[in-house]
Amino acid sequence: MTTLSFRTQKREQLLDITAEVDALVRKSGVRDGICFVWSLHTTCGVTVNENADPDVGHDLAAKMAQLVPRDDPLYRHTEEGNADAHIKTSLVGTCATLPVSDGKLLLGTWQGVFLAEFDGPRTRRLAVTVLPVPGPAPR
Amino acid sequence: MTTLSFRTQKREQLLDITAEVDALVRKSGVRDGICFVWSLHTTCGVTVNENADPDVGHDLAAKMAQLVPRDDPLYRHTEEGNADAHIKTSLVGTCATLPVSDGKLLLGTWQGVFLAEFDGPRTRRLAVTVLPVPGPAPR
Amino acid sequence: MTTLSFRTQKREQLLDITAEVDALVRKSGVRDGICFVWSLHTTCGVTVNENADPDVGHDLAAKMAQLVPRDDPLYRHTEEGNADAHIKTSLVGTCATLPVSDGKLLLGTWQGVFLAEFDGPRTRRLAVTVLPVPGPAPR
Repeated sequence: MTTLSFRTQKREQLLDITAEVDALVRKSGVRDGICFVWSLHTTCGVTVNENADPDVGHDLAAKMAQLVPRDDPLYRHTEEGNADAHIKTSLVGTCATLPVSDGKLLLGTWQGVFLAEFDGPRTRRLAVTVLPVPGPAPR
Repeated sequence: MTTLSFRTQKREQLLDITAEVDALVRKSGVRDGICFVWSLHTTCGVTVNENADPDVGHDLAAKMAQLVPRDDPLYRHTEEGNADAHIKTSLVGTCATLPVSDGKLLLGTWQGVFLAEFDGPRTRRLAVTVLPVPGPAPR
Repeated sequence: MTTLSFRTQKREQLLDITAEVDALVRKSGVRDGICFVWSLHTTCGVTVNENADPDVGHDLAAKMAQLVPRDDPLYRHTEEGNADAHIKTSLVGTCATLPVSDGKLLLGTWQGVFLAEFDGPRTRRLAVTVLPVPGPAPR
Protein backbone atom coordinates (compact mmCIF):
# COMPACT_ATOMS: atom_id res chain seq x y z
CA MET A 1 0.00 0.00 0.00
CA THR A 2 1.15 3.50 -0.82
CA THR A 3 -0.01 6.81 0.56
CA LEU A 4 -0.56 9.93 -1.53
CA SER A 5 -0.93 13.41 -0.03
CA PHE A 6 -2.80 16.27 -1.60
CA ARG A 7 -3.42 19.85 -0.57
CA THR A 8 -6.87 21.14 -1.45
CA GLN A 9 -7.47 24.86 -2.05
CA LYS A 10 -11.15 25.39 -1.35
CA ARG A 11 -13.85 24.21 1.03
CA GLU A 12 -15.56 22.27 -1.76
CA GLN A 13 -13.49 21.12 -4.67
CA LEU A 14 -13.13 18.26 -7.11
CA LEU A 15 -9.36 17.78 -7.37
CA ASP A 16 -8.17 15.75 -10.36
CA ILE A 17 -5.73 13.09 -9.10
CA THR A 18 -5.74 10.86 -12.20
CA ALA A 19 -2.08 11.46 -13.09
CA GLU A 20 -0.83 10.71 -9.58
CA VAL A 21 -2.85 7.50 -9.28
CA ASP A 22 -1.88 6.34 -12.76
CA ALA A 23 1.81 6.97 -11.98
CA LEU A 24 1.53 4.64 -8.97
CA VAL A 25 -0.14 1.98 -11.09
CA ARG A 26 2.64 2.15 -13.71
CA LYS A 27 5.29 1.99 -10.99
CA SER A 28 3.65 -1.06 -9.38
CA GLY A 29 4.56 -3.35 -12.25
CA VAL A 30 1.04 -4.82 -12.26
CA ARG A 31 -0.09 -5.54 -15.84
CA ASP A 32 -3.70 -6.60 -15.24
CA GLY A 33 -5.40 -5.85 -11.99
CA ILE A 34 -7.47 -3.52 -9.89
CA CYS A 35 -6.52 -0.23 -8.28
CA PHE A 36 -8.16 0.87 -5.02
CA VAL A 37 -7.97 4.51 -3.91
CA TRP A 38 -9.16 5.23 -0.38
CA SER A 39 -9.87 8.45 1.44
CA LEU A 40 -8.73 8.08 5.05
CA HIS A 41 -11.01 10.95 6.05
CA THR A 42 -14.70 11.45 6.84
CA THR A 43 -15.22 14.79 5.12
CA CYS A 44 -13.73 14.03 1.71
CA GLY A 45 -14.37 11.18 -0.69
CA VAL A 46 -13.07 9.79 -3.97
CA THR A 47 -15.09 9.69 -7.18
CA VAL A 48 -14.79 9.05 -10.92
CA ASN A 49 -16.15 11.62 -13.34
CA GLU A 50 -15.29 13.72 -16.41
CA ASN A 51 -12.02 15.60 -16.23
CA ALA A 52 -12.04 17.13 -19.73
CA ASP A 53 -14.33 19.99 -18.72
CA PRO A 54 -13.60 21.35 -15.20
CA ASP A 55 -17.17 22.64 -15.08
CA VAL A 56 -18.34 19.09 -14.37
CA GLY A 57 -16.52 19.12 -11.03
CA HIS A 58 -17.89 22.58 -10.28
CA ASP A 59 -21.44 21.45 -10.98
CA LEU A 60 -21.13 18.39 -8.75
CA ALA A 61 -19.84 20.45 -5.81
CA ALA A 62 -22.40 23.22 -6.38
CA LYS A 63 -25.40 20.90 -6.67
CA MET A 64 -24.35 18.93 -3.59
CA ALA A 65 -23.95 22.18 -1.65
CA GLN A 66 -27.51 23.07 -2.62
CA LEU A 67 -28.96 19.67 -1.70
CA VAL A 68 -26.93 19.36 1.52
CA PRO A 69 -26.31 22.95 2.69
CA ARG A 70 -23.61 23.79 5.21
CA ASP A 71 -26.16 24.94 7.78
CA ASP A 72 -29.40 23.14 8.43
CA PRO A 73 -31.54 23.09 11.59
CA LEU A 74 -31.61 19.27 11.18
CA TYR A 75 -27.94 18.89 12.03
CA ARG A 76 -26.79 17.94 15.52
CA HIS A 77 -23.08 17.66 14.69
CA THR A 78 -22.69 21.43 14.82
CA GLU A 79 -19.48 22.16 16.74
CA GLU A 80 -17.22 21.77 13.74
CA GLY A 81 -19.71 23.16 11.23
CA ASN A 82 -19.08 20.32 8.79
CA ALA A 83 -22.12 18.05 9.16
CA ASP A 84 -22.78 18.62 5.45
CA ALA A 85 -19.30 17.39 4.53
CA HIS A 86 -19.85 14.10 6.37
CA ILE A 87 -23.14 13.51 4.56
CA LYS A 88 -21.68 14.32 1.14
CA THR A 89 -18.78 11.96 1.80
CA SER A 90 -21.14 9.02 2.32
CA LEU A 91 -23.07 9.94 -0.83
CA VAL A 92 -19.94 10.03 -3.00
CA GLY A 93 -18.10 7.23 -1.18
CA THR A 94 -14.62 6.88 0.27
CA CYS A 95 -13.19 4.32 -2.17
CA ALA A 96 -12.71 4.38 -5.93
CA THR A 97 -12.19 0.97 -7.53
CA LEU A 98 -10.56 1.12 -10.96
CA PRO A 99 -9.57 -1.43 -13.61
CA VAL A 100 -5.88 -1.81 -14.53
CA SER A 101 -4.98 -3.12 -17.97
CA ASP A 102 -1.69 -3.17 -19.86
CA GLY A 103 0.14 -1.73 -16.86
CA LYS A 104 -1.98 1.41 -16.56
CA LEU A 105 -5.39 2.62 -15.39
CA LEU A 106 -8.16 1.60 -17.78
CA LEU A 107 -10.45 4.62 -17.88
CA GLY A 108 -13.19 5.55 -20.30
CA THR A 109 -12.43 8.37 -22.74
CA TRP A 110 -13.78 11.08 -20.44
CA GLN A 111 -13.10 9.51 -17.05
CA GLY A 112 -10.75 10.89 -14.42
CA VAL A 113 -10.27 10.19 -10.71
CA PHE A 114 -11.08 12.95 -8.24
CA LEU A 115 -10.53 13.70 -4.61
CA ALA A 116 -13.91 15.13 -3.60
CA GLU A 117 -13.13 17.73 -0.94
CA PHE A 118 -16.10 18.89 1.13
CA ASP A 119 -14.36 20.56 4.11
CA GLY A 120 -11.15 22.09 2.80
CA PRO A 121 -8.74 23.56 2.36
CA ARG A 122 -6.81 20.74 4.01
CA THR A 123 -4.01 18.27 3.47
CA ARG A 124 -5.57 14.92 2.63
CA ARG A 125 -4.11 11.43 2.68
CA LEU A 126 -5.22 8.72 0.28
CA ALA A 127 -4.18 5.06 0.46
CA VAL A 128 -3.65 3.25 -2.84
CA THR A 129 -3.33 -0.49 -3.48
CA VAL A 130 -2.73 -2.08 -6.88
CA LEU A 131 -3.87 -5.69 -6.89
CA PRO A 132 -2.78 -8.06 -9.66
CA VAL A 133 -5.48 -10.28 -11.18
CA PRO A 134 -4.16 -13.75 -11.99
CA GLY A 135 -4.54 -14.87 -15.60
CA PRO A 136 -7.09 -17.58 -16.37
CA ALA A 137 -6.02 -21.00 -15.10
CA PRO A 138 -5.23 -23.59 -17.79
CA ARG A 139 -8.20 -25.86 -18.39
CA MET B 1 -11.13 -8.51 -18.15
CA THR B 2 -14.18 -8.77 -20.35
CA THR B 3 -16.30 -6.05 -21.90
CA LEU B 4 -20.08 -6.12 -22.08
CA SER B 5 -22.12 -3.80 -24.31
CA PHE B 6 -25.65 -2.70 -23.66
CA ARG B 7 -28.09 -0.50 -25.56
CA THR B 8 -30.28 1.65 -23.34
CA GLN B 9 -33.70 2.81 -24.49
CA LYS B 10 -34.43 5.95 -22.50
CA ARG B 11 -32.63 9.02 -21.16
CA GLU B 12 -32.94 7.74 -17.60
CA GLN B 13 -33.26 4.03 -17.06
CA LEU B 14 -32.29 1.30 -14.67
CA LEU B 15 -31.34 -1.60 -16.95
CA ASP B 16 -31.18 -5.02 -15.29
CA ILE B 17 -27.87 -6.65 -16.28
CA THR B 18 -27.82 -9.39 -13.63
CA ALA B 19 -28.12 -12.30 -16.07
CA GLU B 20 -25.29 -11.06 -18.31
CA VAL B 21 -22.93 -10.44 -15.39
CA ASP B 22 -23.76 -13.78 -13.77
CA ALA B 23 -23.14 -15.59 -17.09
CA LEU B 24 -19.61 -14.10 -17.18
CA VAL B 25 -18.99 -15.18 -13.60
CA ARG B 26 -20.06 -18.77 -14.37
CA LYS B 27 -17.92 -18.82 -17.50
CA SER B 28 -14.86 -17.56 -15.58
CA GLY B 29 -14.46 -20.80 -13.64
CA VAL B 30 -13.93 -18.84 -10.39
CA ARG B 31 -15.58 -20.67 -7.46
CA ASP B 32 -15.07 -18.13 -4.69
CA GLY B 33 -14.18 -14.58 -5.46
CA ILE B 34 -15.25 -11.06 -6.22
CA CYS B 35 -16.82 -9.63 -9.36
CA PHE B 36 -16.17 -6.02 -10.36
CA VAL B 37 -18.45 -4.29 -12.88
CA TRP B 38 -17.26 -0.92 -14.17
CA SER B 39 -18.96 1.75 -16.19
CA LEU B 40 -16.43 3.27 -18.58
CA HIS B 41 -18.61 6.37 -18.92
CA THR B 42 -19.25 9.55 -16.95
CA THR B 43 -23.01 9.79 -17.44
CA CYS B 44 -24.04 6.27 -16.42
CA GLY B 45 -23.21 4.25 -13.34
CA VAL B 46 -23.68 0.76 -11.94
CA THR B 47 -25.80 -0.03 -8.90
CA VAL B 48 -27.32 -2.91 -6.94
CA ASN B 49 -31.01 -2.80 -6.08
CA GLU B 50 -34.25 -4.77 -6.25
CA ASN B 51 -35.06 -6.34 -9.62
CA ALA B 52 -38.26 -8.17 -8.67
CA ASP B 53 -40.43 -5.05 -9.00
CA PRO B 54 -39.42 -2.81 -11.93
CA ASP B 55 -41.06 0.11 -10.12
CA VAL B 56 -38.01 0.29 -7.84
CA GLY B 57 -35.82 1.28 -10.78
CA HIS B 58 -38.43 3.75 -11.94
CA ASP B 59 -38.58 5.38 -8.51
CA LEU B 60 -34.80 5.71 -8.27
CA ALA B 61 -34.57 7.40 -11.67
CA ALA B 62 -37.59 9.63 -10.99
CA LYS B 63 -36.44 10.77 -7.56
CA MET B 64 -32.93 11.49 -8.81
CA ALA B 65 -34.41 13.50 -11.69
CA GLN B 66 -36.34 15.55 -9.15
CA LEU B 67 -33.34 16.12 -6.85
CA VAL B 68 -30.91 16.78 -9.71
CA PRO B 69 -33.01 18.22 -12.54
CA ARG B 70 -31.79 18.31 -16.13
CA ASP B 71 -31.73 22.10 -16.16
CA ASP B 72 -30.52 24.21 -13.28
CA PRO B 73 -29.11 27.75 -13.28
CA LEU B 74 -26.29 26.37 -11.10
CA TYR B 75 -24.82 24.31 -13.93
CA ARG B 76 -21.87 25.56 -15.98
CA HIS B 77 -21.43 22.38 -18.06
CA THR B 78 -24.31 23.34 -20.32
CA GLU B 79 -23.22 22.66 -23.89
CA GLU B 80 -24.17 18.99 -23.81
CA GLY B 81 -27.17 19.45 -21.53
CA ASN B 82 -26.12 16.54 -19.33
CA ALA B 83 -24.66 18.17 -16.21
CA ASP B 84 -27.31 16.32 -14.19
CA ALA B 85 -26.20 12.96 -15.59
CA HIS B 86 -22.61 13.55 -14.43
CA ILE B 87 -23.78 14.42 -10.91
CA LYS B 88 -26.08 11.40 -10.68
CA THR B 89 -23.27 9.13 -11.85
CA SER B 90 -21.04 10.19 -8.95
CA LEU B 91 -23.93 9.70 -6.50
CA VAL B 92 -24.63 6.15 -7.69
CA GLY B 93 -21.00 5.26 -8.45
CA THR B 94 -19.25 3.74 -11.47
CA CYS B 95 -18.29 0.36 -9.98
CA ALA B 96 -20.36 -2.45 -8.49
CA THR B 97 -18.42 -4.91 -6.34
CA LEU B 98 -20.18 -8.25 -5.88
CA PRO B 99 -19.41 -11.45 -3.97
CA VAL B 100 -18.94 -14.68 -5.93
CA SER B 101 -19.65 -17.99 -4.20
CA ASP B 102 -20.05 -21.52 -5.57
CA GLY B 103 -19.19 -20.33 -9.06
CA LYS B 104 -21.93 -17.73 -9.31
CA LEU B 105 -22.90 -14.26 -8.10
CA LEU B 106 -23.95 -14.26 -4.46
CA LEU B 107 -26.85 -11.84 -4.33
CA GLY B 108 -29.48 -11.27 -1.67
CA THR B 109 -32.98 -12.58 -2.46
CA TRP B 110 -34.12 -9.30 -3.99
CA GLN B 111 -30.82 -7.99 -5.34
CA GLY B 112 -30.01 -7.43 -8.99
CA VAL B 113 -27.28 -5.49 -10.81
CA PHE B 114 -28.27 -2.48 -12.85
CA LEU B 115 -26.73 -0.21 -15.42
CA ALA B 116 -27.94 3.21 -14.26
CA GLU B 117 -28.40 5.23 -17.44
CA PHE B 118 -28.73 8.98 -16.95
CA ASP B 119 -28.07 10.29 -20.48
CA GLY B 120 -29.43 7.70 -22.89
CA PRO B 121 -30.43 6.20 -25.13
CA ARG B 122 -26.85 5.10 -25.86
CA THR B 123 -24.65 2.09 -26.32
CA ARG B 124 -22.71 1.58 -23.09
CA ARG B 125 -19.59 -0.45 -22.38
CA LEU B 126 -18.97 -2.11 -19.04
CA ALA B 127 -15.74 -3.82 -18.00
CA VAL B 128 -16.03 -6.92 -15.82
CA THR B 129 -13.32 -8.71 -13.84
CA VAL B 130 -13.83 -11.86 -11.78
CA LEU B 131 -11.14 -12.19 -9.13
CA PRO B 132 -10.60 -15.50 -7.34
CA VAL B 133 -10.17 -15.33 -3.57
CA PRO B 134 -7.58 -17.83 -2.35
CA GLY B 135 -8.76 -20.32 0.28
CA PRO B 136 -7.47 -19.91 3.82
CA ALA B 137 -3.80 -20.84 4.14
CA PRO B 138 -3.05 -23.97 6.18
CA ARG B 139 -2.11 -23.02 9.76
CA MET C 1 -16.57 -15.57 2.97
CA THR C 2 -18.17 -15.04 6.34
CA THR C 3 -21.63 -13.79 7.22
CA LEU C 4 -22.38 -11.33 10.00
CA SER C 5 -25.87 -10.73 11.36
CA PHE C 6 -27.07 -7.54 12.98
CA ARG C 7 -30.37 -6.48 14.51
CA THR C 8 -31.25 -2.85 13.87
CA GLN C 9 -33.47 -0.92 16.27
CA LYS C 10 -35.02 1.86 14.22
CA ARG C 11 -36.40 2.46 10.74
CA GLU C 12 -33.43 4.66 9.85
CA GLN C 13 -30.20 4.09 11.70
CA LEU C 14 -26.46 4.17 11.21
CA LEU C 15 -25.24 1.12 13.14
CA ASP C 16 -21.52 1.07 13.95
CA ILE C 17 -20.15 -2.35 12.93
CA THR C 18 -16.43 -1.46 12.97
CA ALA C 19 -15.54 -3.77 15.86
CA GLU C 20 -17.27 -6.79 14.34
CA VAL C 21 -15.68 -6.29 10.92
CA ASP C 22 -12.23 -5.67 12.40
CA ALA C 23 -12.53 -8.83 14.51
CA LEU C 24 -13.12 -10.85 11.32
CA VAL C 25 -10.11 -9.23 9.65
CA ARG C 26 -7.86 -10.10 12.62
CA LYS C 27 -9.18 -13.67 12.67
CA SER C 28 -8.55 -14.10 8.92
CA GLY C 29 -4.77 -14.07 9.33
CA VAL C 30 -4.42 -11.67 6.38
CA ARG C 31 -1.61 -9.16 7.03
CA ASP C 32 -2.00 -6.88 4.00
CA GLY C 33 -5.13 -6.91 1.96
CA ILE C 34 -8.58 -5.62 1.30
CA CYS C 35 -11.79 -6.20 3.22
CA PHE C 36 -15.15 -6.19 1.42
CA VAL C 37 -18.37 -5.79 3.40
CA TRP C 38 -21.59 -6.42 1.48
CA SER C 39 -25.20 -5.79 2.32
CA LEU C 40 -27.29 -8.65 0.93
CA HIS C 41 -30.38 -6.45 1.07
CA THR C 42 -31.96 -3.72 -1.06
CA THR C 43 -33.13 -1.41 1.71
CA CYS C 44 -29.92 -1.11 3.72
CA GLY C 45 -26.39 -0.24 2.66
CA VAL C 46 -22.89 -0.05 4.07
CA THR C 47 -20.93 3.17 4.47
CA VAL C 48 -17.80 4.64 6.04
CA ASN C 49 -18.08 7.76 8.18
CA GLU C 50 -17.20 9.24 11.55
CA ASN C 51 -18.00 7.09 14.57
CA ALA C 52 -16.59 9.34 17.30
CA ASP C 53 -19.68 11.57 17.41
CA PRO C 54 -22.95 9.60 16.99
CA ASP C 55 -24.59 12.82 15.77
CA VAL C 56 -22.87 12.31 12.42
CA GLY C 57 -24.92 9.16 11.82
CA HIS C 58 -28.06 10.93 12.97
CA ASP C 59 -27.46 13.81 10.58
CA LEU C 60 -26.88 11.49 7.61
CA ALA C 61 -30.13 9.58 8.26
CA ALA C 62 -32.10 12.78 8.94
CA LYS C 63 -30.88 14.64 5.85
CA MET C 64 -31.50 11.63 3.62
CA ALA C 65 -35.02 11.32 5.05
CA GLN C 66 -35.60 14.96 4.11
CA LEU C 67 -34.21 14.60 0.59
CA VAL C 68 -35.89 11.25 -0.07
CA PRO C 69 -39.03 11.25 2.09
CA ARG C 70 -40.88 8.06 2.93
CA ASP C 71 -43.95 9.16 0.99
CA ASP C 72 -43.80 10.89 -2.35
CA PRO C 73 -46.39 10.99 -5.14
CA LEU C 74 -43.51 10.10 -7.51
CA TYR C 75 -43.18 6.59 -6.12
CA ARG C 76 -44.79 3.59 -7.84
CA HIS C 77 -43.31 0.94 -5.50
CA THR C 78 -45.89 1.72 -2.85
CA GLU C 79 -47.17 -1.62 -1.51
CA GLU C 80 -44.35 -2.03 0.98
CA GLY C 81 -43.99 1.67 1.75
CA ASN C 82 -40.22 1.52 1.39
CA ALA C 83 -39.48 3.10 -2.00
CA ASP C 84 -37.38 5.68 -0.17
CA ALA C 85 -35.25 2.96 1.44
CA HIS C 86 -34.41 1.47 -1.97
CA ILE C 87 -33.34 4.86 -3.32
CA LYS C 88 -31.19 5.67 -0.28
CA THR C 89 -29.51 2.27 -0.53
CA SER C 90 -28.31 3.01 -4.07
CA LEU C 91 -27.07 6.45 -2.98
CA VAL C 92 -25.02 5.06 -0.11
CA GLY C 93 -24.05 1.80 -1.83
CA THR C 94 -24.18 -1.86 -0.82
CA CYS C 95 -20.46 -2.55 -0.51
CA ALA C 96 -17.74 -1.00 1.65
CA THR C 97 -14.19 -1.64 0.46
CA LEU C 98 -11.57 -1.16 3.18
CA PRO C 99 -7.78 -1.41 3.33
CA VAL C 100 -6.18 -4.02 5.60
CA SER C 101 -2.68 -3.39 6.93
CA ASP C 102 -0.70 -5.11 9.69
CA GLY C 103 -3.44 -7.66 10.18
CA LYS C 104 -6.20 -5.15 10.93
CA LEU C 105 -8.50 -2.63 9.25
CA LEU C 106 -6.64 0.50 8.20
CA LEU C 107 -9.05 3.32 8.95
CA GLY C 108 -8.49 7.04 9.22
CA THR C 109 -8.55 8.52 12.74
CA TRP C 110 -12.26 9.28 12.63
CA GLN C 111 -13.46 6.54 10.31
CA GLY C 112 -15.82 3.73 11.25
CA VAL C 113 -17.88 1.25 9.23
CA PHE C 114 -21.66 1.47 9.40
CA LEU C 115 -24.63 -0.59 8.42
CA ALA C 116 -26.96 2.06 6.97
CA GLU C 117 -30.47 0.88 7.83
CA PHE C 118 -33.27 2.57 5.90
CA ASP C 119 -36.19 0.18 6.51
CA GLY C 120 -35.71 -1.28 9.98
CA PRO C 121 -35.96 -2.54 12.54
CA ARG C 122 -34.83 -5.80 10.95
CA THR C 123 -32.24 -8.54 11.16
CA ARG C 124 -29.65 -7.88 8.45
CA ARG C 125 -27.03 -10.14 6.92
CA LEU C 126 -23.69 -8.85 5.69
CA ALA C 127 -21.13 -10.90 3.76
CA VAL C 128 -17.46 -10.20 4.47
CA THR C 129 -14.40 -11.29 2.49
CA VAL C 130 -10.80 -10.52 3.43
CA LEU C 131 -8.54 -10.70 0.40
CA PRO C 132 -4.76 -10.90 0.82
CA VAL C 133 -2.68 -8.63 -1.43
CA PRO C 134 0.50 -10.36 -2.60
CA GLY C 135 3.75 -8.55 -1.79
CA PRO C 136 5.64 -6.92 -4.68
CA ALA C 137 7.24 -9.48 -7.01
CA PRO C 138 11.06 -9.55 -7.00
CA ARG C 139 12.50 -7.55 -9.91
